[in-house]
Amino acid sequence: MPIRSIVIERARRAHQAAGSLKNTEGGVRSEALHRAAELLHRRESKIMRANAIDLEGAQEKGLSAALLDRLTVHEQRLEEMAQGLREVAEFPDPLGAVIESWERPNGLRIERVRVPLGVIGIIYESRPNVTVDAAGLCLKAGNACVLRGGSEALHTNLILAEVMQEACLKTGLPDGCVEIIPITEREAVYELAKLDQYLNLIVPRGGEALIRAVCEVATVPVIKHHKGLTQIYVDRVCDVEMAVRIVHNAKVQRPGVCNAVETLVVHRENEAALRAIIEDLRAAGVELRGCEVTRSIVPDLRPAEQVDWDTEYLDLILSIRTVDSFEAAVQHIARHSSGLSEAIITSEGAAGERFLREVDSACVYVNASTRFTDGGQFGLGAEIGVSTDKIHARGPMGVRELTSYKYVIRGTGQVRP
Amino acid sequence: MPIRSIVIERARRAHQAAGSLKNTEGGVRSEALHRAAELLHRRESKIMRANAIDLEGAQEKGLSAALLDRLTVHEQRLEEMAQGLREVAEFPDPLGAVIESWERPNGLRIERVRVPLGVIGIIYESRPNVTVDAAGLCLKAGNACVLRGGSEALHTNLILAEVMQEACLKTGLPDGCVEIIPITEREAVYELAKLDQYLNLIVPRGGEALIRAVCEVATVPVIKHHKGLTQIYVDRVCDVEMAVRIVHNAKVQRPGVCNAVETLVVHRENEAALRAIIEDLRAAGVELRGCEVTRSIVPDLRPAEQVDWDTEYLDLILSIRTVDSFEAAVQHIARHSSGLSEAIITSEGAAGERFLREVDSACVYVNASTRFTDGGQFGLGAEIGVSTDKIHARGPMGVRELTSYKYVIRGTGQVRP
Repeated sequence: MPIRSIVIERARRAHQAAGSLKNTEGGVRSEALHRAAELLHRRESKIMRANAIDLEGAQEKGLSAALLDRLTVHEQRLEEMAQGLREVAEFPDPLGAVIESWERPNGLRIERVRVPLGVIGIIYESRPNVTVDAAGLCLKAGNACVLRGGSEALHTNLILAEVMQEACLKTGLPDGCVEIIPITEREAVYELAKLDQYLNLIVPRGGEALIRAVCEVATVPVIKHHKGLTQIYVDRVCDVEMAVRIVHNAKVQRPGVCNAVETLVVHRENEAALRAIIEDLRAAGVELRGCEVTRSIVPDLRPAEQVDWDTEYLDLILSIRTVDSFEAAVQHIARHSSGLSEAIITSEGAAGERFLREVDSACVYVNASTRFTDGGQFGLGAEIGVSTDKIHARGPMGVRELTSYKYVIRGTGQVRP
Repeated sequence: MPIRSIVIERARRAHQAAGSLKNTEGGVRSEALHRAAELLHRRESKIMRANAIDLEGAQEKGLSAALLDRLTVHEQRLEEMAQGLREVAEFPDPLGAVIESWERPNGLRIERVRVPLGVIGIIYESRPNVTVDAAGLCLKAGNACVLRGGSEALHTNLILAEVMQEACLKTGLPDGCVEIIPITEREAVYELAKLDQYLNLIVPRGGEALIRAVCEVATVPVIKHHKGLTQIYVDRVCDVEMAVRIVHNAKVQRPGVCNAVETLVVHRENEAALRAIIEDLRAAGVELRGCEVTRSIVPDLRPAEQVDWDTEYLDLILSIRTVDSFEAAVQHIARHSSGLSEAIITSEGAAGERFLREVDSACVYVNASTRFTDGGQFGLGAEIGVSTDKIHARGPMGVRELTSYKYVIRGTGQVRP
């Protein structure tokens, strides 16, 4: 069968499932997640066999140790997936909630009610746990999903999707709630992105090139999850010890993620903070790159080049820019931010409030680490990703962001004059 | 200058303006709208001269009387535009509102705050009032806009945009808040739709073909405003007089709009309602087309063909399908609906509630005319359009739907463990 036909068939099945899935009770959808958590353990040996095939293939292809690790499923990771499902199952049902309601002078009663989006396409790369996490979040919000994972994890993903499907069937959810595309060619992604008659949303999680390619061909709405070029501004006056602690946490604790800081902007008058932060990060093995002004204060830094201000290192590297004013800091941030997370460290309340207002990022912080940009850390529960778009959902996307609404209008015979 | 360069330049200017527009006070943005309302009258003769050029061109091209009428600006229409601006100006400022807020166990205080989207591209066809209405709504919500109207209205649109720009400048809003693309080639639309570095959203208002073409090339998010295939279901038991009144209103009052009914679905046991509705609509000059079952009850109807169930007549034509059950009605609706407005006429409460739950349309009604699908009728104020998408905004899109949000996090030195 040509690729296009296979993709269409899966998307059509999901679309059909979504039609009845939206009418199911929240309790049934939760039960499906609990069942899936159980089944993950019961199907352990089958999952491990599939994972062994993927790992063997990946080793033959010479994938790095880090990628092999991301690909590996073992007992603890299975339990993490199961635990994730159980947690999502326990969230309150988002569907049917009346978001707002009012009455019109003509007596029409209008409600805005939360409903599922319909069918969500999830495109992701090597980590197989996304198969389970994403399907779980979609089901919780009453959505069918069409999954398309990375080629290295194909066998593992297919078995994990099978577990989710089995759990749905056993709970009485319609066939087709969790569909997976068993095709590794990139063409399958492009075909999927054009099926706006079946899909309501695509969430691509992966590299910049993949996301751009999807956006270029998609007619289905896409919520982009781009890179995070995160910046922290240390203001003219601040608690130096706090600044050291926050920058250290934002750079060192987990440098490979989108909410880790990549650029530090420091007010010129705050040399104390600049020196203390540099001393601390050097001790932590961070490579520092400074602008000319920074290097006039701390001479033995490697010079930062223009490209540094736009580079997401995802590594123990930090570029430092020293500025003359708050305004210059906000300008630097606006020019180079990816619009995800930005923080100010300040002891001046007015500066903090102005920063919160003027910096146009999904998450803006005063005196806290940017590492908190995360659905779990916000208390939103598990997240399907972190949106760098402004429409529909911005920042961490949880279950609620996988829903839409409809207007429900109850009348007594009203007609429009 | 090549088309692409002109489009990029306008979009870039709007993007730059949006950066400072988002920090303006609501009062200033309202004042700009009041000034624009005034200026519309003061620039009346200039506007009329431009409109005369457009009308002359349109007559030469042999446009229909209806299109010429849509294109015409006269004193009353200017006053309607001005009045629209004054009304939008009086809305409460949507920006800065705290949508929700909570505190985390670690003491972080998190707020979700309403902010502008940034830059909105509006693509529209012949009616020049959209230039003023759309720019007014965008400004109210703190957004810059890039307008691209129909070629027939180019001269009128350019002057109207100039009026909006003049009002912005006089109020101290940044240059570039209202940009207009002075190019009639379709290519300009396609170029605009690819400028995701500058635009945050595109709202295409126009024919099916235009919307599809925009979606196919766009990398900027698009909220689609498709046609409305509106259906009304007359249930087994209902107030016959009410059914006649509602169907009459939904079909006859203004047949050329997206919330006018195109298909009537009737329960087979409700022959009384079927006959009464047919009698009423015939008297009103509506052409009726029936399925076989309908024609077995009322023989002298023109037969409906398969294509009728998917046709938006926008005219005094109605197709009628008679079904055996509630389920068959909901199935017919699901298969043929455009997902915008659907209604049930019933005197059984449970059937009404089930319809509201199971029919997946932006606006679902019990015992009221579908003609109420409209921002003004809902009490949301003026609308930029009616979304047939499910993400971001569904149904009538008012000022609130032209906004996004950001997370504002206030800490006291918290770092992630």
